[in-house]
Amino acid sequence: VSGDRFGELLGQVAQGRLSPEAALERLRHLPVDDLQFAQVDHLRPLLQGHQEVVFAQGKLPEQVLGICRSLAEATGAFLVTRADAPVRERLREAFPRADVNELGRTVHLEPDPPPASTGRGTVLIVTAGTSDLPVAEEAAVTAHALGNRVERLTDVGVAGIHRVLRSAESLRRAAVVIVIAGMDGALASVVGGMVRVPVIAVPTSVGYGAAFGGLSALLAMLTSCAAGVAVVNIDNGFGAAAAASRINHLP
Amino acid sequence: VSGDRFGELLGQVAQGRLSPEAALERLRHLPVDDLQFAQVDHLRPLLQGHQEVVFAQGKLPEQVLGICRSLAEATGAFLVTRADAPVRERLREAFPRADVNELGRTVHLEPDPPPASTGRGTVLIVTAGTSDLPVAEEAAVTAHALGNRVERLTDVGVAGIHRVLRSAESLRRAAVVIVIAGMDGALASVVGGMVRVPVIAVPTSVGYGAAFGGLSALLAMLTSCAAGVAVVNIDNGFGAAAAASRINHLP
Amino acid sequence: VSGDRFGELLGQVAQGRLSPEAALERLRHLPVDDLQFAQVDHLRPLLQGHQEVVFAQGKLPEQVLGICRSLAEATGAFLVTRADAPVRERLREAFPRADVNELGRTVHLEPDPPPASTGRGTVLIVTAGTSDLPVAEEAAVTAHALGNRVERLTDVGVAGIHRVLRSAESLRRAAVVIVIAGMDGALASVVGGMVRVPVIAVPTSVGYGAAFGGLSALLAMLTSCAAGVAVVNIDNGFGAAAAASRINHLP
Amino acid sequence: VSGDRFGELLGQVAQGRLSPEAALERLRHLPVDDLQFAQVDHLRPLLQGHQEVVFAQGKLPEQVLGICRSLAEATGAFLVTRADAPVRERLREAFPRADVNELGRTVHLEPDPPPASTGRGTVLIVTAGTSDLPVAEEAAVTAHALGNRVERLTDVGVAGIHRVLRSAESLRRAAVVIVIAGMDGALASVVGGMVRVPVIAVPTSVGYGAAFGGLSALLAMLTSCAAGVAVVNIDNGFGAAAAASRINHLP
Amino acid sequence: VSGDRFGELLGQVAQGRLSPEAALERLRHLPVDDLQFAQVDHLRPLLQGHQEVVFAQGKLPEQVLGICRSLAEATGAFLVTRADAPVRERLREAFPRADVNELGRTVHLEPDPPPASTGRGTVLIVTAGTSDLPVAEEAAVTAHALGNRVERLTDVGVAGIHRVLRSAESLRRAAVVIVIAGMDGALASVVGGMVRVPVIAVPTSVGYGAAFGGLSALLAMLTSCAAGVAVVNIDNGFGAAAAASRINHLP
Amino acid sequence: VSGDRFGELLGQVAQGRLSPEAALERLRHLPVDDLQFAQVDHLRPLLQGHQEVVFAQGKLPEQVLGICRSLAEATGAFLVTRADAPVRERLREAFPRADVNELGRTVHLEPDPPPASTGRGTVLIVTAGTSDLPVAEEAAVTAHALGNRVERLTDVGVAGIHRVLRSAESLRRAAVVIVIAGMDGALASVVGGMVRVPVIAVPTSVGYGAAFGGLSALLAMLTSCAAGVAVVNIDNGFGAAAAASRINHLP
Amino acid sequence: VSGDRFGELLGQVAQGRLSPEAALERLRHLPVDDLQFAQVDHLRPLLQGHQEVVFAQGKLPEQVLGICRSLAEATGAFLVTRADAPVRERLREAFPRADVNELGRTVHLEPDPPPASTGRGTVLIVTAGTSDLPVAEEAAVTAHALGNRVERLTDVGVAGIHRVLRSAESLRRAAVVIVIAGMDGALASVVGGMVRVPVIAVPTSVGYGAAFGGLSALLAMLTSCAAGVAVVNIDNGFGAAAAASRINHLP
Amino acid sequence: VSGDRFGELLGQVAQGRLSPEAALERLRHLPVDDLQFAQVDHLRPLLQGHQEVVFAQGKLPEQVLGICRSLAEATGAFLVTRADAPVRERLREAFPRADVNELGRTVHLEPDPPPASTGRGTVLIVTAGTSDLPVAEEAAVTAHALGNRVERLTDVGVAGIHRVLRSAESLRRAAVVIVIAGMDGALASVVGGMVRVPVIAVPTSVGYGAAFGGLSALLAMLTSCAAGVAVVNIDNGFGAAAAASRINHLP
Repeated sequence: VSGDRFGELLGQVAQGRLSPEAALERLRHLPVDDLQFAQVDHLRPLLQGHQEVVFAQGKLPEQVLGICRSLAEATGAFLVTRADAPVRERLREAFPRADVNELGRTVHLEPDPPPASTGRGTVLIVTAGTSDLPVAEEAAVTAHALGNRVERLTDVGVAGIHRVLRSAESLRRAAVVIVIAGMDGALASVVGGMVRVPVIAVPTSVGYGAAFGGLSALLAMLTSCAAGVAVVNIDNGFGAAAAASRINHLP
Repeated sequence: VSGDRFGELLGQVAQGRLSPEAALERLRHLPVDDLQFAQVDHLRPLLQGHQEVVFAQGKLPEQVLGICRSLAEATGAFLVTRADAPVRERLREAFPRADVNELGRTVHLEPDPPPASTGRGTVLIVTAGTSDLPVAEEAAVTAHALGNRVERLTDVGVAGIHRVLRSAESLRRAAVVIVIAGMDGALASVVGGMVRVPVIAVPTSVGYGAAFGGLSALLAMLTSCAAGVAVVNIDNGFGAAAAASRINHLP
Repeated sequence: VSGDRFGELLGQVAQGRLSPEAALERLRHLPVDDLQFAQVDHLRPLLQGHQEVVFAQGKLPEQVLGICRSLAEATGAFLVTRADAPVRERLREAFPRADVNELGRTVHLEPDPPPASTGRGTVLIVTAGTSDLPVAEEAAVTAHALGNRVERLTDVGVAGIHRVLRSAESLRRAAVVIVIAGMDGALASVVGGMVRVPVIAVPTSVGYGAAFGGLSALLAMLTSCAAGVAVVNIDNGFGAAAAASRINHLP
Repeated sequence: VSGDRFGELLGQVAQGRLSPEAALERLRHLPVDDLQFAQVDHLRPLLQGHQEVVFAQGKLPEQVLGICRSLAEATGAFLVTRADAPVRERLREAFPRADVNELGRTVHLEPDPPPASTGRGTVLIVTAGTSDLPVAEEAAVTAHALGNRVERLTDVGVAGIHRVLRSAESLRRAAVVIVIAGMDGALASVVGGMVRVPVIAVPTSVGYGAAFGGLSALLAMLTSCAAGVAVVNIDNGFGAAAAASRINHLP
Repeated sequence: VSGDRFGELLGQVAQGRLSPEAALERLRHLPVDDLQFAQVDHLRPLLQGHQEVVFAQGKLPEQVLGICRSLAEATGAFLVTRADAPVRERLREAFPRADVNELGRTVHLEPDPPPASTGRGTVLIVTAGTSDLPVAEEAAVTAHALGNRVERLTDVGVAGIHRVLRSAESLRRAAVVIVIAGMDGALASVVGGMVRVPVIAVPTSVGYGAAFGGLSALLAMLTSCAAGVAVVNIDNGFGAAAAASRINHLP
Repeated sequence: VSGDRFGELLGQVAQGRLSPEAALERLRHLPVDDLQFAQVDHLRPLLQGHQEVVFAQGKLPEQVLGICRSLAEATGAFLVTRADAPVRERLREAFPRADVNELGRTVHLEPDPPPASTGRGTVLIVTAGTSDLPVAEEAAVTAHALGNRVERLTDVGVAGIHRVLRSAESLRRAAVVIVIAGMDGALASVVGGMVRVPVIAVPTSVGYGAAFGGLSALLAMLTSCAAGVAVVNIDNGFGAAAAASRINHLP
Repeated sequence: VSGDRFGELLGQVAQGRLSPEAALERLRHLPVDDLQFAQVDHLRPLLQGHQEVVFAQGKLPEQVLGICRSLAEATGAFLVTRADAPVRERLREAFPRADVNELGRTVHLEPDPPPASTGRGTVLIVTAGTSDLPVAEEAAVTAHALGNRVERLTDVGVAGIHRVLRSAESLRRAAVVIVIAGMDGALASVVGGMVRVPVIAVPTSVGYGAAFGGLSALLAMLTSCAAGVAVVNIDNGFGAAAAASRINHLP
Repeated sequence: VSGDRFGELLGQVAQGRLSPEAALERLRHLPVDDLQFAQVDHLRPLLQGHQEVVFAQGKLPEQVLGICRSLAEATGAFLVTRADAPVRERLREAFPRADVNELGRTVHLEPDPPPASTGRGTVLIVTAGTSDLPVAEEAAVTAHALGNRVERLTDVGVAGIHRVLRSAESLRRAAVVIVIAGMDGALASVVGGMVRVPVIAVPTSVGYGAAFGGLSALLAMLTSCAAGVAVVNIDNGFGAAAAASRINHLP
C-alpha cells in the first residue's frame, strides 16, 4: 500500500500538478514505511539464493509442515534445523525426497537438480569428541545447503595431542575450519595456532558440573590464546556454518 | 547527495521522459541510503524539542566542552550527565549561567527564557536512603530538562514502613512515580502496591557484599510482587526520567 | 473487629465521657491494625475496577476452579494466566462462556456485557519472532482485560530491518508499545529509537546456549542504547500489560 | 574399642604399675580417635531430646522405611522431610499413626503421649503468597516436632501493604518470626522493620525468569534494609525451623 | 498535621455535630497518612532504647559529624559504622570521649554513665583467621552498643580442627554464637554441629580468586550441613550483631 | 601411510642416493603428520596398561556395547562409567562376567585373572553423606580398575565433628585421600588439615537452592583453608580416581 | 640438539650399519621432541610475514622496549598493543619513526618501505558510540599492520536506525565488517542482517550497571538474531582484526 | 590447664581413691577441650618439619615482621607469600640473609645450613605465558621451601603447539607437574594428555573481558578433557606447591 502514495505523487509530477521540487520536499516528510517498500530487494536475508532455513524448535509439527509446504512450492527447497523426532517424522512422510539427518536433527529438501557448490574452498568441521557430533552434523548439513563443500574430522581431542597433529595437513587444506568442542574447548586454541585460515569455534553443552551447559567451553574459546579465533553461540552448528559460508563466499 | 538522484528522477517524470510507473520501478532498486535522507526528520531522537543530552562518562573535559559549545550555539541549551568534577569545573567556567548539580553530576543549560513544563502531571521521585540521592538528582534534573514538573520524596525505606505509608497521599497525587532503591529494592513493591499510576523502578549500586553492585535490587525489582512495575538499568536515573517523560507526555 | 474499639471510643466522645484530646492521645497508642481497617478501600489492588487476575502456575486445577467460581459469583468476571492444559480444560467445562487462549495460556471470563475500553489509546504489542507469541498473547489478553484497545505486530526481528521500518507508522500511532523479544533483545533498542511514546520491553526465554533462559535479552534491554526503555521480568507478558495499562490510564 | 586402651591404662595406674605422670605422658601420644569416644555425649546432634530427622530426598522408599523403623524402635518417634509421594505412601502404610503432611512433604511420628512444648514462646510463620505454603508447612511441622508452639500467618505480600499492617499485633506477639517469600523477598524487610524479636527469612524458589530459582529473593533478603534479619537457604523450611527452635530454646 | 483532621472530627463528635457512626464512616475514607501518625510509637526502629546507628560509608565526614552532633544532643549517644579514616579523625576531634575502633572502623559514644548490659547471656564472636578481625570488631562494638555482653574467640580455622575443639567449652557457655569466616566458611558448619544455641554466620570477603569477594563463603554457609545456622550479608558484622541482639533480648 | 615417505627416504639414504645431511634437510620440511606416526606409542592415553574407560553418557546402549565388544576382544577388559539402566542391562546380558555397580553406574570387565594392585598404598574414599555415595562408588570402581587398593569411609559430615575425628587413624594410614562432599564441602578442609598425604576433593551436586548444582561445594573446596587440597569437577568420581591413581603410581 | 640423534641415525643408515627398517622401528620409539624440531617452519605463528605483535599489558616499559629492540633488529618492524602511557612514551623516544596511536594504545613500527596491502578487500570497522573508539582504533591499527585496507564508520548506534541505514552502501562494499558495540550490542544484529559478507562482532565494556563489564553485549552478540555473526572477546579489537585478516587473506 | 584435671584424676586412681571404672565414666563426661591437649602433636599443620608460612596479604608490614621475628627465633626459618613492596622492604632490612623474590612476592629465610631436598622427584612448573610468571615464582619458592627440587618450563602456550611438544621429555622426567595458565587454560589439557604423573593445574587471572578474573581458565581446567587433572584456586601458586609437595613426599 505504501507504494500507492508514491505512485500518486509521481503521477502528480507527471501531470505537472506538482513540481519536482515540491515533490522532493513532500517526500522528506513521508514516514519511513512509505519509502521502505523499495528496499526489500536490497535487504533480503543473508541466505537468499539458497534454500530458506526453518528453526523448528518450539514449533508444532503441523506448523513446520505448513511453512515447508509453502517454501517447497515457491522455491523447491528448504532446510529445517532443530527438528525433533515428531517433526522429522511428519516431514519424512510429506517429502519422501528430503534428506533427514537423525543425529543433526535436520531435514533438507534440495532443489532438483542440486546446485553446484559455490564456495571458494572446503569448510572443514573438526570435533573433539563423539558427543559433539550432533552439533557437527547440524553444521555440515547447513554448510552444504548454503553451497559449500564440507569435510569432517572427528574425535581429535587435545588430550591425545598426536591425533590433532596427525590432522595438520587436512587442517591446512581447508578454506575455513569450524572447531566444535565442549568442556574445556581447548581444541579451538590448538587448531587456531596450527592454521592461518579463518577458524570458527563452536562451544557445545557437552560435559557436566562446572561445564555449566557449555559456559566453560564458551569462555575458554572467547579467551583463546590463539589470535583471531571467532566464536558463535553454544551448540550453534547452524550459526557456525552460516558464518563459514559468509567467509567461503567472499567476493 | 542522495537527494540528487531523487530530484533527477522527479525531473525526468516532470519532463515526461519517464512514466510514473517506470520511476516507481526504478525506485524499488535504489539502495537504502539514497532514500533514507528523507527520514531524518521523522526519526529524530526522542528528546527532540528539548535540550540535547550528553553522556560525559569516558569523555575528556575538552571533548564535552566542544560538544556543549556546538549545542549551545545551535539550540541555546544542553544537558550533561555523569559529569565528574573536572568536567563540571570546565563547563562552569565556560557557561556561568548553567546549573551545576554536584550530587547528581549534571550540568544543565536551559534555554532563555526557560520553557514551560509540558508534561501532563508531576513526576515524583522517591528514594529509599540518602545514598540513593545521586541517582535521584540525575533523574530529577533530567526530568526537569525534558519538560516535566518534578517532586522529591526522600528516605522512605520500607524498614520503617510508617514513613512510606505517611507518604501515601503524595504518591497518589503523582502522574508517574520513579522509585529509587538499592540493596533489597523492596520499596518498589510497596509503592507499586499503593498507587495505580505508572511506576518506574531504578535499582542502585548502594550496598555491599551480596548487593553485588546493584544486582540484588535489580533482580528484586524485576520480580516485584506488585503488578506492572517497570525497571531500568542500575543507577540509571537518566533512563528512568526519560521513561517517565515519555509517559508524562502521552498524547 | 478493630473497628469496634474505634466505634467504642467515638461513642465515649459523643457521650462526653472522653474529651477529644484524650481520645486523640489514646489513638496514638492503638496498634496499627486497629486503625488499618479504614484503609482497605484506599489500598485496593491495582486492577480494581477490572476483573481479578489469578496466577495459576503451581496451583491445582481444583484450586483455580474454586477461586474462579468465587470471583465469578462476586464480580461476574476473572482472568487466569499461566493456565496449563488441565487447568484450561477444567475451566472450559465450568465456564463455557469464557475465552480460552491456548497459545497465551489464559482463560478470561468477561463481564456481560463487556465493558468499553477505558484507556487513552492503543497498546501495540510487537514481537520479534514466532516463538515469542505465547508471551505476546498473555500480554494481549491481559491488556484487553484491563480495559485497553490492543493491536499486534508480529515477526519484525531486527535482522530484517526493513520489516521494522515498514512498521514505523503503526508504531507511531500507538499510545504505548510493548516490545517482546528473546535472544539479543535488539528490537527494543530499534523501536525505542523510532517512537516517542512509552516503550515496555519484555525479554523472553526464547533461544538456547548463551541466551541463558532470557538473561541475554534481559541484560541487553536493560542496557538499551535507546533512552527511556523500561523492562519487566523475562516472559512476563502479564506484567508488561499491567505496566502499559497503568500508563494508558494516566489520569 | 578405644575405651579399652583407656580402661587398660587406668587399670595399670590403679595397680601402681604406671605412675600418673607416665600415664599422662602416654595419653599425650594416643591418636585422636582413642580419646574421642568420650565426646559422643557432648557432641550429640542439635536435635537431641527430640525426634530424629530424616532427609528423604534422593533416598529410595525402602531406605527411608528402614531408617524410620529403626528410629521408631529406638525412640518411638521420627520426622521425615522432603518425602515425595511414594515415600509418604510407604510410610503411611507402615506407620498408620504418623501424621502425613502432603503440602509440606513431611511424615511425623510423635512419641506417645506427645511431649509438651518446651520453647519459650510462639514461632510465627508468615508467608507472602500461596505458592510459598509448601515451605511454610515444612517449617511448621519441623518447629512443632522440635518442641515449639507454632502459628501461621498466610498471604501477606507487601504489594498489599495493608494486609501486612493488619497483622502487626500477631507479629509482635511472637517470640521468633519466620518470613517465607519468593520473588522480591520484600516481606522480610517490612516485617523486620516492624518487630524487635528475631526474624529468620526463607527465600523460596517461587517465581520465574529473573527469580532465577530463588536467587532474587535470597539476595534481597541478605541485603535487607531491616537490621538483623538472618537468612537460610532457598526453600529451606526445615533449616528455618531449626534456627527458630535454637532461638526459642535459649537457656 | 494529619492529627488535625482527626482532632477536628473528634471535636465534632464531642459537640454532637457528628454521630459516632457517621464519624466512623468518614474515617473509613480518610487516606492512610491521616491515620498513620498514631503508629509512630509502635513502629519505632529496632534499636530504640539504645544508641542510634549511623552507616558512614558514602557519606562525607561533615555529614556524619552533623548527624552525630544532633544524636549526641538528643540522646547523649551514637554508634557510627564503616567509618573510614577521615570520618574517624573528624569524630575523634569533636567527641574526645567517644571510643574509636580502628580495626572495626567504628566510633561509639556511650551514654554517661554507660547502661548495664540487658541481654540474657553472652554473645560469642568466633573468627577463622586474623583477616576476619575487622568484621569481628564491627560485630563486637555493635553488640556491646546494643546492650550485650561480648566475648571473642579468634583464629580457630577448621584446618587446625584441634583449635576448634579446644574451644568447645567457651562455645557452649554462650547464649548466641556469631561465626565469622571467609573462603570456605567451613567454621560455621563445625561450630553449628558443636553447639545447640543459635548460630549467626557471617561470610567475609577474605580470600582471592574463587572466593569471589565472599561468594564462596556465603554459599557454603547457606548450604551448611549443620541444621539451623542462619546467615547475614558478606562482611556484615553489624547485621550479625543486630540479629544476635534480637535473640539475646528475647522476652 | 606417513611412515611410507619416511621409509622411502631411509631407503634412499641406505642406497647412497641421498646423503644424511640432505635427508635431514628434507625432514625439516615434511609436514607434521608425516612424522607424527612415530609418536603414537609415546603418547598413548593415561590409562594404558589398564582397562580402557568408556564414558557412556549421551551414547546409545548399542554404541556402548559395540565399543565394549571391541575392547573386550582386544584387551579382555573395559570399564564403563555413567552407564544408565538401559546400558547396564545391555552390558549385563552381553558380558555376564562383568561387575555391574548400580549405585556408581559402572560396568567393569576385569582381565582374567585380575591383575594385582600396582599402587604404592591405599586410596581412601571419604564421603560426607549418603547422597554422595554414587560419586564415591564411581571413584572406588575406577580406582580399583586402575590398579589401586581402595578403602571407604562413609557418612563423616563435619556437623558431627566427632565422627571425623574418630576416623583420624584411617585417614592417616592412606596414601591418597579422596574427599567427596556436597553443599558446603567443609569436609575437605577438615580432612585436609588432619592429614599430610595428598587430598583430592570432589564437590557433588547434592543439595538444593544455594547449592546451585554443586557450585557452593566447588567454590568452598577451591578456597579451602587447608593448604594443598586439589579439586576436580563436580560429581567427577572418575576424575578423582584418575588423579589419585596418578599419585599412587608415582615412580 | 634433537636433530643430532636423527643425524646420527641417518649416518648409520648411510654407512649400512642400520637397515632402513630398523631405523624406522627405532624412530617409532624416539620421544616427540626429537622429531619435533622439523615442524618449526610449519607451525610458525599466524602473523608470519607481517610484523610481530607484542601484548604490553602487565609488562614493564623496559621489558617491552627490549622485545621491540630485538624485533626491530630482526625484522625492521613490530606492533605493540595495550601500551599504556609510560610504554608509549618509552617507545616513542626509542623509535621516533614509529606510529603511536594514543586512543588505540598501540605503537606500530612499519617496515621501510611499508608493504602493499595484501588482503582481498576492505576491512570495515563500524562503531556504535564514541566510547567504543579505543577498541576500534586497536582493531584498525592491527588490521593495517596485518596487511589489510581499513575503513571506519563511526557512531551508528541502532537507537538512530536511519544512521545505520544511510551506511548501507559502505557496509556492502566491504569484504569483512567488524562491528564494535557495548551495552545492548544490537548493532551486530542489524548490520548482520544487512550484509552478506562475514561479520565479526566485538562487545565492549562500555556501559555501567547491568552492562556488567561487557557481559550484556557479549551475550547479546552470541545470541544475535542475524545468522552467521561471529564474536570475539570483550574489548578485543586486536582479535577481531586478526580474525578479519584471516578471512581477508583467504587463499 | 586441661591436663590438670586429667592429672588429678589419674592421681586419684593411683591413690586408690577412684576405681578405673569410675574414672572412665567420669572421662566420658569431660568436655572436649579437657581431652584435646593430647592431640596437638597428632594434628600439627601440614607443613611441619619445614618453615612456617605467613600469608602477608591484608597484614601490615609491622605485623608480618613481628610474626617473622618470632618464627626466626623459634625455628630459624620462615616463608612469607603475597608480600607487597613495603612488606618486602621491611623484611629485607630485618633479615638481610633472606631471599626476596620480587616477581613471586615472597620472602624466604632458610635454615642455616639449608636442609637437603626430601621429595621423591622433581616438581616441574610449566607456564603458558610470561604474565603467568608471578604465580609460577610463588609456586617455585614454596615448593623449594617445602623440600622439593624444582624445575621451570616457561612460555609454552598451546597456540604454538610445537613448543609444548618439544618439552615432552622434560615433562615426562618430572615426578609432579604444575601447569599454570590463564585465559583458556588449555595447556592443562594438553600436558595432562602427555604425561602419566600427577598434574596440578593453576588457573591465573591473566586475561581481560570474558576471562572474568580467571574464571574462564578455572572452568576450563575443571572440565579438562584429560583425565585426572586436579585444580587449585585462581592464582594460587602456593596451594599448587603445597599439593605437589604432599604428592612428592608420598611415604
